[in-house]
Order: sequence, then C-alpha cells, then structure tokens
Amino acid sequence: MSPTTALSASSSLTTLFPFSSSTRKSKLTNFTQFPFRFSPKNPTLNLTSSTARSAVSIEKEVPETERPHTFLRESDDDDKEPTSTSFVRARFEKMIREAQDSVCQAIEAVDGGGKFKEDVWSRPGGGGGISRVLQDGAVWEKAGVNVSVVYGVMPPEAYRAAKAAATDQKPGPIPFFAAGISSVLHPKNPFAPTLHFNYRYFETDAPKDVPGAPRQWWFGGGTDLTPAYIFEEDVKHFHSTQKKACDKFEPTFYPRFKKWCDDYFYIKHRNERRGLGGIFFDDLNDYDQEMLLSFATECANSVVPAYIPIIEKRKDTPFTEQNKAWQQLRRGRYVEFNLVYDRGTTFGLKTGGRIESILVSLPLSARWEYDHKPEEGSEEWKLLDACINPKDWI
Amino acid sequence: MSPTTALSASSSLTTLFPFSSSTRKSKLTNFTQFPFRFSPKNPTLNLTSSTARSAVSIEKEVPETERPHTFLRESDDDDKEPTSTSFVRARFEKMIREAQDSVCQAIEAVDGGGKFKEDVWSRPGGGGGISRVLQDGAVWEKAGVNVSVVYGVMPPEAYRAAKAAATDQKPGPIPFFAAGISSVLHPKNPFAPTLHFNYRYFETDAPKDVPGAPRQWWFGGGTDLTPAYIFEEDVKHFHSTQKKACDKFEPTFYPRFKKWCDDYFYIKHRNERRGLGGIFFDDLNDYDQEMLLSFATECANSVVPAYIPIIEKRKDTPFTEQNKAWQQLRRGRYVEFNLVYDRGTTFGLKTGGRIESILVSLPLSARWEYDHKPEEGSEEWKLLDACINPKDWI
Repeated sequence: MSPTTALSASSSLTTLFPFSSSTRKSKLTNFTQFPFRFSPKNPTLNLTSSTARSAVSIEKEVPETERPHTFLRESDDDDKEPTSTSFVRARFEKMIREAQDSVCQAIEAVDGGGKFKEDVWSRPGGGGGISRVLQDGAVWEKAGVNVSVVYGVMPPEAYRAAKAAATDQKPGPIPFFAAGISSVLHPKNPFAPTLHFNYRYFETDAPKDVPGAPRQWWFGGGTDLTPAYIFEEDVKHFHSTQKKACDKFEPTFYPRFKKWCDDYFYIKHRNERRGLGGIFFDDLNDYDQEMLLSFATECANSVVPAYIPIIEKRKDTPFTEQNKAWQQLRRGRYVEFNLVYDRGTTFGLKTGGRIESILVSLPLSARWEYDHKPEEGSEEWKLLDACINPKDWI
Repeated sequence: MSPTTALSASSSLTTLFPFSSSTRKSKLTNFTQFPFRFSPKNPTLNLTSSTARSAVSIEKEVPETERPHTFLRESDDDDKEPTSTSFVRARFEKMIREAQDSVCQAIEAVDGGGKFKEDVWSRPGGGGGISRVLQDGAVWEKAGVNVSVVYGVMPPEAYRAAKAAATDQKPGPIPFFAAGISSVLHPKNPFAPTLHFNYRYFETDAPKDVPGAPRQWWFGGGTDLTPAYIFEEDVKHFHSTQKKACDKFEPTFYPRFKKWCDDYFYIKHRNERRGLGGIFFDDLNDYDQEMLLSFATECANSVVPAYIPIIEKRKDTPFTEQNKAWQQLRRGRYVEFNLVYDRGTTFGLKTGGRIESILVSLPLSARWEYDHKPEEGSEEWKLLDACINPKDWI
C-alpha cells in the first residue's frame, strides 16, 4: 500500500512520543511520567505502579543517509486492506511528514538566514524518524521539528484488558505502534513567543492468539504558545486559530482542550503555567477514527497560520538587556516544566529515547536568578499573572 | 539544653533534604525520587510505590527577621538528658550552622565583591532554615549555602517495621526530624569548578504508644566537584582532601564513598556523570552514632580546604568565548541531573519545599546545543571522557 491511499479505522492506543530509540530494556521507574494512559470512558489500559517499573523495549536506532519513503514495516506498508489499521498508520505518517515539511519551509522563509539540519534514523525491525533542527538562525535561536515512527513492546501487566480476559492463558508482551510530530520553536527576540506543538497516534497491536487483548488506538496532541511578554492581539489571534480548527469538528473541543492545556502545562512547584496555553488533548478515541485523523491534520495545518504572523510582527522589535534577561528566566521555567513534568520528555529520557531529539525542546540558553520577583504592574508581572491565573483570550 | 552541649545516640533514619517547606499535603507520585531509603543491612524503611503516592506533610514556612538561637522544638532544646536523641539533633544543628558561617565567610573573602543575602524562616510547630545566596559576585556567579531543620510526618506505610510489629494495632503517621546543610557554588570563570556539598541527619520519632515502630536514625551527605575543564592537580587535591577526612575514621570509607558518588551523580540518559565526583554516602547508621557525627563534621570542615585553593588558582585564568560556551553546556548537564535525578531536588519540588531554596542549586545560566560533540582529544573531550569513564584521581 502506498501511504498516499488509505482511508480506514480499526482499534488501538496513544502517547506523547517526541522520542525515538533504545536497545536497552530500560526500567521504567516512574509512574507519573509514563505516557500510556487511557480515558476514563475506556479504561482498558491502566498502568499500575508495578507495571510502570516494567520494561518497555524499543530497538536501537541506526543513522540513515536518506529519508525512506516510509518508516512503516513492510507488512504495514503493503497492506491492501482499506479496513486495516495499517491504513491509518500510513496516512498518519504521511500527514506528519507533510506537516514537518511545510512548517520547516515556513520557518526557513521567515528566518531568512538559518537552514534546518536533518538527521534521519531507522530501526532494523521497522520505525525510525527525521529530526530537523535550525540553530542560531536570524530569527530563531533554536527550532526543532521531529517526526518519529516507533514499533515497541510493552509489558502485559500494562494491559489490563488482556489480563482480565485471558483466563489460564498468559499474554506475552504487547506490541505497540506510535507515530508523532513534535516541535519546539524558540525565537531570539524576547517579544517573539516560543511555540510548541505535538500530534501523535498510538495503537496496541495485540498478538492474534490472545483473544483477551484487543487492539486499541488513540490520538493525542496540542499546540501552545509561550511568550515572555503579552501582546493581547497576538494571544487572541493564536487562540482564535486553535478555536477555528476545533470548531470545524466539535463545538466542545476548544473549551475542553483549552482547559486541558492550561491544566497540563502546569509547573506545580511554581504554581504557574509554562505559558499562555492553546489546546491539548490525549487518549482521544471516543469519536470516529476518521474524524479524529482529520482533526489532528487540521490542527497540524493550523500551526503556520497561528504562529508565523505573530513572529513576523515581533521578530524585529527593539529590546533591552532587561527584556532579554526576563526571556531567559522564562526559558528557565520552560526547562523546569520539560525536565520535571512533561510526559513525553521524561518518558523518553527514562526509556532511552534518542536524547538529542528529545532534548531539542530545551532552549539554547536559560537562566535562574534567586528569588526573582517582577515589580507589580510591570509587563513582566502581567505575563506572570497570566501564567498563574489562566485567562480566556477570545 | 543548649545546642553547644550534648553528646549521645539513639535510633532513627535519613534523607537528602536541601528542602525546607510546605503546608499542603502534597502527593508523592514519584517512587524513584522519594528520598527515604534504607541500607540493605537494615531494611526497616522500604517504600512501596503505593506509599510513594501517600502524603508527607510539612508545615508552611514563615519568614523571620532574625536568626533564632535554634530551630529545634523547645522539647528538643530543653532536654537535659545526655543520652536523649535530642542531644544529637542539637549538636547536628550547631555543626551545620557553624559550617554555613565558615563556608560563607571563606566565599566572601575570596570573592572580594559579592555579599550573601540571607533569608530566615521558621515553622509554627518547630523547624526552619537559613538560606544564604551570593549572586553575581566577582568570582561566583551564584553561590547558595542553606541550612534547614524539618519536623515532618510520613505515612505509616512508609515504615515497614511499624507495620510488621503492630499486629492488630495500626500505627498513625510517623513523625520525622531532618536537619541538613546543602550548598552549590557556581563560579564565573570556566576554569574554576563548581562545588556541591550536603550533609544531613535524619530521625524517625515514632509515637510512644506504637511499640512496633522503633526510632531510627541515619546520616547522609557528600562533597563533589564539577569542573568544565580538568586540571589534574586540582582534582587530585580535591579527592585527597576527601580521602584524608575519610581515612581519619575508616579506611574503607573513601573508596566506598568515592564509588557511591560516581554512581549517584549519573545522568543516565547521557551515560555520563555530572562531574568528577568526590564522596557520597547515604543511610549510614551501621557505625557508632557519635563517630558518624564526628565524621560528618570532619567532612563539612573539609569543604573550604578542598575547594578554596582551587578557586584561588583558577578564578582569574584568561578564557575565550568557546571556553565559556562549554562551561554553559556543562551547566546544562547540571540542570538535567538536578531536575531529573537528584533525590533531594525532586523530592523538594514534589512535596512543596521552599522553591527558591531548592532551586538555588541551578546555575545562573545554562545552554543546550543540538548534538554538540567535542573534538576528539580536545580539552572539552577529555572532561567528557572523564565523566563517562570515572577515574581514580589519587
């Protein structure tokens, strides 16, 4: 099957995966950071702490000199059955690779100076990824746009449905498939905001001889804005674009995913959010699979129109050393969130993902001053206030 | 009892505690980062994942305008019994406060420009701390030296001995006492190394009506060096000073604690250590309590002679922009270790400790470049090699 055809649904699961590798059977010692979850509506997959300490195994990546036509296993790629789950895998891979191309093109066009450096890798048993990083450009200090396709195996204890149904027959490890695009764009100018987006699709591919372990699928993702200073018109434009994408599918999506985003990007130890939000969703499988694939596509296609106009407006704004220092302090918060709370990052680090791809989300530089408190009423204070008390921007 | 007298032992437990506060009953959702552990020799305290998600409660701190004579509860401070455990509490507090004074004096004297800013706080039910931070000095970019005394409560599930012995009687929450000094010193010059040290004493103070929950105590701590460039004579001097302190007490201490240090400060996702090590120990209770108190005191007193001569030699070494950029990249690794792995930091963050005191360990600034690899054979490469393959320096 060519990844350009396809049009169908089946059953499976999801995750955050900005990640990409590992040969070692790393121990997952950290429950909260484990990215497999399941929605309350469909609590099939529900890791216990003991399973969180079990192994998830992914093969070690191998550098490639050329981008392959697809990272799917041949069995997935050749599948002619339009009702097969591999159809969705192929279409999702195609979507994220196209999104990677269009976002990178838009970034390079606005940057004017920097070019993306590309790293391609694959894994012997299928899967792989493309990391693109533009560093020290004219506009962006660090811009990473990664896609990855992962075939892995999770422990059967991770999979309650299997355990419950398989009476005297113990299921083996559960194969899973995950594909995603993940990007963080950090501009130089302190008045130009950082953007993050990530869209992902996940499936479990239960062994056929284990009737009690059904295939499951889900979608996850989101796009969010992290400025150091607030320009209300920018934040409104950004949120409106997210809302427009959501409203095409379901009127409840924007309010629900806006709140989810505010809740997710919460730096608990600071009692503040990383930035001014956007949308975030996970474990999404309670709608038609075709509809959710279109929704994820629409969201990914909304990144450029939501973000680039803001950058064009702010990239050359004059700034002071103080503005730059404040941006660097906010970048410190970005690092704190990503290393302490972000499920994709922490999961990738603990399971031995491709470190450079995972940590490309960190800013080029960041700063921590002891007990820094912006003056009440200042522009810095207003940003902090909006991070502490999330606002409705539309 | 005056904290200057005292000389006795009892039974109890330990932790990393650079931390200091919290009123909310934070959920501990993270097993690996929970700082309560017990040595294999005496596996009394052994948290399960479920207990790791139970509450540890500590009162909210209150700022103070003056340093109190002691942070101990009156019942501890007034205790006249020289065999009482409060005797050790008082002496340990006195030791860490004197160490704080002497280290800060030595830092200010060498810095010549910067002065420590002091924050004192206490808690209504006893306990408190003193944070001292020198920022943007002539020699140090950020130097933090904190002491804290904590009275807290841990869930009974955290305490296996209690569970095992109390047959039909369920013990209530287990009160604990912890006191420690914790310091990170980040100099400006890329040829001058960062130093970290932390010495701590811990006790559980089991309720008297629970016969199965014995009092336990332990000591923990260490001193380690993190340069961006290797000067062999500096590293030798540093390690020799640690060995000398160890050898006064027990010939096995240095080799054992040197290895423990290399193992502890391991950035797993990078397969490299944070720096060039030193000594580290935890859960130490299998020696005479008096001997261990003297040992911790000797270690704390060795900080200045181990570190200051190195700083005096390197603080004015001319450097290039490239040297500075490499230092900043290594500072990025410091941030990664502290936020992802350090038990004291992650525990403090999750339980609602005093954030500014906990995160004073982070450097003023840090840097992350995509896929940076030092040229083989370069000075940068040599440092990295020593972080990947720990060496014997003496």
